[in-house]
Amino acid sequence: MKQGFTLTELAQLLGAQLIGDPSFRVHRLASLTSATGDALSFVANEGYAKYLPGCQAGALILNADLAPHFAGNRLVVAKPYLAYARVSALFDPHWRFESVIDPGASVADDVKLGAGVFIGPGAVVASGVSLGDGVMIGPGSVIGAGVVIGDRTRLEARVSVYHSVVIGSDCVIHSGAVLGSDGFGFAPSQDGWQKIHQLGRLVIGNQVEIGANSTLDRGALEDTLIGDGVKIDNLVHIAHNVHIGRDTAIAAQTGVAGSARIGASCTLAGQVGVVGHISLTDGVHIAAKSLVTGSITQAGNYAGGTSVSPTAEWRRNTVRFRHLDDMAKRIKQLEKTLQEVRQQEVRQKDA
Amino acid sequence: MKQGFTLTELAQLLGAQLIGDPSFRVHRLASLTSATGDALSFVANEGYAKYLPGCQAGALILNADLAPHFAGNRLVVAKPYLAYARVSALFDPHWRFESVIDPGASVADDVKLGAGVFIGPGAVVASGVSLGDGVMIGPGSVIGAGVVIGDRTRLEARVSVYHSVVIGSDCVIHSGAVLGSDGFGFAPSQDGWQKIHQLGRLVIGNQVEIGANSTLDRGALEDTLIGDGVKIDNLVHIAHNVHIGRDTAIAAQTGVAGSARIGASCTLAGQVGVVGHISLTDGVHIAAKSLVTGSITQAGNYAGGTSVSPTAEWRRNTVRFRHLDDMAKRIKQLEKTLQEVRQQEVRQKDA
Amino acid sequence: MKQGFTLTELAQLLGAQLIGDPSFRVHRLASLTSATGDALSFVANEGYAKYLPGCQAGALILNADLAPHFAGNRLVVAKPYLAYARVSALFDPHWRFESVIDPGASVADDVKLGAGVFIGPGAVVASGVSLGDGVMIGPGSVIGAGVVIGDRTRLEARVSVYHSVVIGSDCVIHSGAVLGSDGFGFAPSQDGWQKIHQLGRLVIGNQVEIGANSTLDRGALEDTLIGDGVKIDNLVHIAHNVHIGRDTAIAAQTGVAGSARIGASCTLAGQVGVVGHISLTDGVHIAAKSLVTGSITQAGNYAGGTSVSPTAEWRRNTVRFRHLDDMAKRIKQLEKTLQEVRQQEVRQKDA
Repeated sequence: MKQGFTLTELAQLLGAQLIGDPSFRVHRLASLTSATGDALSFVANEGYAKYLPGCQAGALILNADLAPHFAGNRLVVAKPYLAYARVSALFDPHWRFESVIDPGASVADDVKLGAGVFIGPGAVVASGVSLGDGVMIGPGSVIGAGVVIGDRTRLEARVSVYHSVVIGSDCVIHSGAVLGSDGFGFAPSQDGWQKIHQLGRLVIGNQVEIGANSTLDRGALEDTLIGDGVKIDNLVHIAHNVHIGRDTAIAAQTGVAGSARIGASCTLAGQVGVVGHISLTDGVHIAAKSLVTGSITQAGNYAGGTSVSPTAEWRRNTVRFRHLDDMAKRIKQLEKTLQEVRQQEVRQKDA
Repeated sequence: MKQGFTLTELAQLLGAQLIGDPSFRVHRLASLTSATGDALSFVANEGYAKYLPGCQAGALILNADLAPHFAGNRLVVAKPYLAYARVSALFDPHWRFESVIDPGASVADDVKLGAGVFIGPGAVVASGVSLGDGVMIGPGSVIGAGVVIGDRTRLEARVSVYHSVVIGSDCVIHSGAVLGSDGFGFAPSQDGWQKIHQLGRLVIGNQVEIGANSTLDRGALEDTLIGDGVKIDNLVHIAHNVHIGRDTAIAAQTGVAGSARIGASCTLAGQVGVVGHISLTDGVHIAAKSLVTGSITQAGNYAGGTSVSPTAEWRRNTVRFRHLDDMAKRIKQLEKTLQEVRQQEVRQKDA
Repeated sequence: MKQGFTLTELAQLLGAQLIGDPSFRVHRLASLTSATGDALSFVANEGYAKYLPGCQAGALILNADLAPHFAGNRLVVAKPYLAYARVSALFDPHWRFESVIDPGASVADDVKLGAGVFIGPGAVVASGVSLGDGVMIGPGSVIGAGVVIGDRTRLEARVSVYHSVVIGSDCVIHSGAVLGSDGFGFAPSQDGWQKIHQLGRLVIGNQVEIGANSTLDRGALEDTLIGDGVKIDNLVHIAHNVHIGRDTAIAAQTGVAGSARIGASCTLAGQVGVVGHISLTDGVHIAAKSLVTGSITQAGNYAGGTSVSPTAEWRRNTVRFRHLDDMAKRIKQLEKTLQEVRQQEVRQKDA
């Protein structure tokens, strides 16, 4: 990274058309409005075209339509944001590590270690665990008995993985995430709640990313399942027995209750709630803070809730919410009465 | 567990009537529709009766009404789900551990250790701590000065317990939970917010379960109190000075603000909010994502919020929410005007 | 603390007028209604005046208006709650620590250590880190490469700080907080979501407090910025590129989405959501559980959402929410029709 990358190298990586100096060397990435000198930037969509005339970037990733509007070095591609995503990996220093088992880690004798594994100081890897090639176990992470982790999966610092959890390859698990904790299951009894022991597993596919401090519970009897390519943000809760379909993205602080089924290629925005035992079909998109209380069988966009207004105004309106049913009935009555009045009028006229 | 349990053994444990082969040996538990061979399953309620004719389970826990509908081995009890809860404990491998103080743990000299304690690698137990018999301190957990933990309480990996917190016996604290952190208290001043040091404790009763990454704050001056038998799910926030009554259950991502009082045997569903300084009486049940802004003095079910609808439809409706008060006034005006019209009619008729 | 503080000492600290015994020694703090003997209490506002006649406190902090209503020892100040905040620091045993680098900590050779630093057992401090004077790194905390932490900042147990994060001086970071995790950024592609590597930093000012298990993401390209004096409660999520202005306070479980700008001296109550790419000006106060979907340019109080009601009542009302637009149109139609009727009336009269 010290020496950066030439535009020739980047054009090859991206399959981009290079306009400008092939030997120009990019040393860092920057936003469109702040990029200068040896920084590469990108134009994600037409909305940013207005910044092109004044842009000081050393080079730009953009599409063919916008390319004529910038005079400097250009990498022309069909999907600039996707191309930028690929380049961003080259400039992330955090993603390089040396293979080492830190002497301060606690690793059971029978752990199966792939090639090039990193286990940080303070990490604990219990008996029967299997770690694929190039796996990173961050400092202070705790991996329970019998866990299986696929190649190149990366656990940041202080991740907890309960026993028997399965994680695929090329996953990223952020710090503080808890994988495979007990689902919330209790049977009522005369002596209070009796714990239902949670005997299922949590099974996570490939290329899954899970955000900081999110919690994914193991199944009660069968498994909790997270499909390939699923992306989960911070502080998300996934309850026991839930299934999440492939390539679904779930934003921060959203919760999915027990035994719910979320389809593939869905997006749940932040602070969404999905109640238990319902299904969302593929391609469902839920707006922020919505509560989903029933199954959704049609792909599309859904929203709920109300937005903020000045408190004095809101107070007047929200108090009416509790009388909505009454209001609806009064409207119906008004319509009925008014119809009678009009009929009366007609009769009078006719009379 | 290798050899499982005979139906005779299970019938004795449950006080169940055994119909079938007393020496039949159960090796695992499974759901009603997937159980085969040596698996035991259960029928929680009449709704599942339709699965009985095709059920392949080696044995079933069910009630007397449903017992005639299954031909295989049966354990007949009054409350099948509760009986299943009891059996589930027998089949949870995670719940067995050897007593050991891991050499990689950091335990202060003056810690009082009960019999059969487990302290995992990387755990830290500070000065003045008292751990009861059979306590488990998971790997990487940190127990602050002067903490008291009762018999058989189990802290999973990476739990934080701040100084002076008291935890009862037979509790389960899941990974990532933080117990006894500072309440959110600040006094405004010309130099910004001035911290109110949080001098109270967090006191947790017996048989309490606390979910992954939940946070329970210590009191400001007096104590935060969690009653016996309380069950708290993942990512729940309990603020300073809150009292939670016995056997209350709180689902994931719910928050209870400072000094609120929740009664006994309440249930708060997921993503509920309870504002500060209010009281909920015993037996109050709050639906998912509701905000409770005032005290509730009557037991019963309460709900708030709105459900999702297709975004285009929702947009048309939500914009009206800001005019609800206006709509209510217009309805009233319509009723008044219409009444005048009708009186006018009557006068005309009479005239 | 064993011997407490005399009222003379406290009066000097607070600049208070002392009425009573100057040598009276305070050994603990207590609430107004429970304080007895050698306990000091305070009266935050006039609402508590009714408790003064029966108050058993050894001494009271109160204002000049209320001072005549209590006969015991008094410390008279203009702002009793602020004065109490200052005194509370004296009585917090948790805030004293000895400087030591625990032998069970893992500290890189090139770490720059200020004077009087504490690093607890199991903590990990990576290469290139700089810790100011009097910094406390709690047990099990993990500090990534190149992190800078200012003087007297205090990280409780099990805090994660990703590489290159900057934290100012006099901050408090509670247990389980994750600072500088990746923002949630992915570009869609035919092969699913492609990760946008998060190359910006998280930069936190001075005198910031961050609650247990909160998550603050690093910027995508530019930095996430938290201003001086900001106070953040537990389980809060701050997404990438967000800016929070100085002295803003954010209560538990609130989330601020990517690239949002929150002004100075704002308050966001619990469970608030702020969507991405919007701005809130200084002095904006948002009520609990509100969703802010657009920029706010006027200081003041804002609220959203609906409160709970008994479920049967709520069910009748919430179903009407989906017909609000229809109701509004019907009201308009009723008004129009009624107007026609009235005009008809007038014509009939005139006729």
